[in-house]
Amino acid sequence: MKDKNITEWEKIRTETGPDLTLFTARFDWVRNPRNAHILKATVLESPDWTNIVALTPENKIVVVRQYRFGIEESSTELPAGIIEPKETSQEAAIRELREETGYASDEWEYLGYVKPNPAFLNNRCHHWLAKNVIKQSEQEPDEGEDLVVGEMSMDEIKMEILEGRCRDSLSFSALAHVYDLSEILKNATRHNPLP
Amino acid sequence: MKDKNITEWEKIRTETGPDLTLFTARFDWVRNPRNAHILKATVLESPDWTNIVALTPENKIVVVRQYRFGIEESSTELPAGIIEPKETSQEAAIRELREETGYASDEWEYLGYVKPNPAFLNNRCHHWLAKNVIKQSEQEPDEGEDLVVGEMSMDEIKMEILEGRCRDSLSFSALAHVYDLSEILKNATRHNPLP
Repeated sequence: MKDKNITEWEKIRTETGPDLTLFTARFDWVRNPRNAHILKATVLESPDWTNIVALTPENKIVVVRQYRFGIEESSTELPAGIIEPKETSQEAAIRELREETGYASDEWEYLGYVKPNPAFLNNRCHHWLAKNVIKQSEQEPDEGEDLVVGEMSMDEIKMEILEGRCRDSLSFSALAHVYDLSEILKNATRHNPLP
Repeated sequence: MKDKNITEWEKIRTETGPDLTLFTARFDWVRNPRNAHILKATVLESPDWTNIVALTPENKIVVVRQYRFGIEESSTELPAGIIEPKETSQEAAIRELREETGYASDEWEYLGYVKPNPAFLNNRCHHWLAKNVIKQSEQEPDEGEDLVVGEMSMDEIKMEILEGRCRDSLSFSALAHVYDLSEILKNATRHNPLP
């Protein structure tokens, strides 16, 4: 790819949109530098998120299973949550792991971040690795949470994927920082009806 | 993980929210089976998406670089788009690859789907692999697009990640279906300032 500069789009106008609980919507009117066409872009302003690959001394992965309101079914995912104001991403990862699962660790390693959706979300999701996690307390779920915690080997995660219970893109992204998912995911595909 | 059933949350009320161009917001009031607490959940209703790992005969990956309104900077990503009504995900993948890049292929392989965000999005993102793609036409970008197309080796993609130009979680997810990203992403992390 040639090192072509991408021209920033000029922002003509911006307007705060409705409060959506999880985010605040914002509308930006931006000018396309290619054709001067003005586009109304929807941006969802959200704090950064974090999720955690938490490994037990036996190298099992701590997962949470919960009913998810977007897909209206249950989903097996990595522990995750929203970074609170004034919290570092590591502090949030430690807190979310404790609240959602009761596990704790002294060995934390930053895996990096992704942008959950550059097109309409302004935030990042920070992936953390916690090694030798131990169950130290009871869960402290929020009022709006109902979580089942489990430990899974990568073979068991593979079955969750194969059987369609684990499809969360940000869990995949965090796991892909630690494991080679390509073989697992290729096998999973054969079980998908062609859409 | 024990095979505990997750109780579906009872939907008390639902209400259509504001039109956000890319999605329609919906508010669901749902009852937590654990504590009977009623939660107002925000759901963004969206058509399914698709993105494409398009490989040239030299095994380079076709990428697009564009200014993204969510992050308000440029982003290197796989070709991607929204599946139109009555389109299959493959038809959409073929169309988006042609419109965004001008490339075409006769060899398409379904890689599976992820759920971009089970918590608040109701849709799926279908990953497709196109082999031996060839540039056959000019780009046909939408009025709201300004795209630079390139071909990159995995080493070049790695540099895009290292230097922070490629962070799109759904591009990572599609690539993780084909490549072992763990080594690349581990190296990339060392370049991240700790958040």
